[in-house]
Amino acid sequence: MQVKIVVDAMGGDQAPGEIIAGSLLALQSDPKLHIIFVGDEHKIQPFLPKYDLAGRYDIVHTSQWVTMDASPKKALLENPEASILKCMSLVNEGLGDAVVSAGNTGASVLAAAQVLPMIPGIERSALAAAYPTSKFTPGSHGVALLLDVGATLHCSAKQLVHFAYMGTYYMSHVMGIPEPRVGLLNNGEEETKGGEVLVTTHKYLREAPGVNFIGNVEGKDIPKGLADIIITEGFVGNVVLKMLEGVADVVKDMSKFAFSHKLSWKIGLALLSSGVKRLKKKTDYSEYGGAPILGFKKLVIKAHGRSNAKAFSNAIRITALSVRDNITGQIGDSIEKFNRQHRMDFMEI
Amino acid sequence: MQVKIVVDAMGGDQAPGEIIAGSLLALQSDPKLHIIFVGDEHKIQPFLPKYDLAGRYDIVHTSQWVTMDASPKKALLENPEASILKCMSLVNEGLGDAVVSAGNTGASVLAAAQVLPMIPGIERSALAAAYPTSKFTPGSHGVALLLDVGATLHCSAKQLVHFAYMGTYYMSHVMGIPEPRVGLLNNGEEETKGGEVLVTTHKYLREAPGVNFIGNVEGKDIPKGLADIIITEGFVGNVVLKMLEGVADVVKDMSKFAFSHKLSWKIGLALLSSGVKRLKKKTDYSEYGGAPILGFKKLVIKAHGRSNAKAFSNAIRITALSVRDNITGQIGDSIEKFNRQHRMDFMEI
Repeated sequence: MQVKIVVDAMGGDQAPGEIIAGSLLALQSDPKLHIIFVGDEHKIQPFLPKYDLAGRYDIVHTSQWVTMDASPKKALLENPEASILKCMSLVNEGLGDAVVSAGNTGASVLAAAQVLPMIPGIERSALAAAYPTSKFTPGSHGVALLLDVGATLHCSAKQLVHFAYMGTYYMSHVMGIPEPRVGLLNNGEEETKGGEVLVTTHKYLREAPGVNFIGNVEGKDIPKGLADIIITEGFVGNVVLKMLEGVADVVKDMSKFAFSHKLSWKIGLALLSSGVKRLKKKTDYSEYGGAPILGFKKLVIKAHGRSNAKAFSNAIRITALSVRDNITGQIGDSIEKFNRQHRMDFMEI
Repeated sequence: MQVKIVVDAMGGDQAPGEIIAGSLLALQSDPKLHIIFVGDEHKIQPFLPKYDLAGRYDIVHTSQWVTMDASPKKALLENPEASILKCMSLVNEGLGDAVVSAGNTGASVLAAAQVLPMIPGIERSALAAAYPTSKFTPGSHGVALLLDVGATLHCSAKQLVHFAYMGTYYMSHVMGIPEPRVGLLNNGEEETKGGEVLVTTHKYLREAPGVNFIGNVEGKDIPKGLADIIITEGFVGNVVLKMLEGVADVVKDMSKFAFSHKLSWKIGLALLSSGVKRLKKKTDYSEYGGAPILGFKKLVIKAHGRSNAKAFSNAIRITALSVRDNITGQIGDSIEKFNRQHRMDFMEI
């Protein structure tokens, strides 16, 4: 099936060079792929091949874009022609199937929210993050999805169940994990924990068809990979995700110190280097498929800002797969069924 | 100043042996200390010295106690004479100055709530947890306090500011950190982040006299030790604390694997062992002062369940120091002033 991916050529620490290089890699390996680059034509042209891949891509020009460290809301207001906004408009008009961007995360989420219609029945979109988990936990797939890590502060039970469906389709279709295990992040394993919203969510998830719910999970289960999908409100997801980054930073600092501090430690680290490399590869974002922004009628995949060509082509590959599997359609069908099943519960009488 | 500490002799993985041994160590090093052991006399007696320290301790007998893995609420209901409840009653009647327990955390918090009066002006008690932080972050003291990690699900701005005062007195007096830096856990650095409660808390903390507020902190700052005290509602604190435990478990699993998997890795780890030992010491709970339960008129210190004699004597030492510094009185004075300053804000009109 022919798939048209819209790429924000200006987004990413190494844009547009690595972004375009990654897109071309994806075009080479997938003959039924077409790419629309959105960005400054003069900056994009130098990275395009002279003769190859002719007709496999287009350029939509704009001279505005959001920089990586810009304040998302302000930048979008000041740049109504920003490349990320144009990307969303193109897919909204049916000129493309999905958006991939390695740019400013906040701006990607806001631009999607501003332009794209939601899947009917869904109230809140979610930003999901794939993160590496321990291979030593039985059942762990070495990667898990945490959502929401975006802008939702607090969520209703209904919204949290919707997140479970979004995560389930993404992990099963895109990451290839059959019947991914869904855990509800809570402050205890018992189903009575966490207050009214989480108790109700727990009850709904127990009965949700197509969701492989394994119950509440706790903070300690997050790095262990006890669940393939962890459901939580955006505030908590944000703290958890950033904490994983913080722990990785501290470990890096420690090994740097050990390496420079003592000869025996230096030799020790050198002997461990093959293991450390393996670990680095495991915790390298380029190995993961990026962070999907779920809940909109069109799929938006946020690749990591640090993405190089390889990581970006991987993000495109995953996005094309999701489009072909009609993930957004499947999410919509399941959620419509769930909402219908609980129509009485959701009425405020 | 003479201090009477009430010890739950039945609480802890290695109770009563290590609990009593630790208490005796504390008595030996502090001539103005008196200890009341609460628990089963027949189990306590064998661990007491024949002649030494006569008159320096008493035993209050009870044949009921809460086991480490018991469900707290149920256990307290079924054991109205439980040692931890007796401990609270003794300090409430003025027969002791503070309680130290290495037992079931939930039961300690619930027993305190059931028996002890709150400091006037405080609405919610907090369970605080000291955790190790990176020494590589400028300003880090190698230890920080996270609160609440207890039972509060959601908090008001007023309650969060109270936590800041509790933490400030504990860290400055007990841990000896002058003007400890207070951070408010949030999903962004900007003061507009986190919703109404956190925005208001931020505003209050900026103006709170005696609180060294450094602004919002994010998940990544938690392991780095950017703040000496991190304020958050109990749900988030619980997830964060358990995640730190989970990460430590994963690191342990990985080194075990590396040690057994490859000779070069085994030798590498052996060469690093002095560093690993240092790290283990740093992340060893026995080096920390236990988790204070703050907000009650009498101080309750929860030592780690795994406490050995050394760790438990350290918890007693810290508790005696807190009593002599009249920490609960100082917390009460500051909070009374803060409440008065914001009396208009807290009125619901």
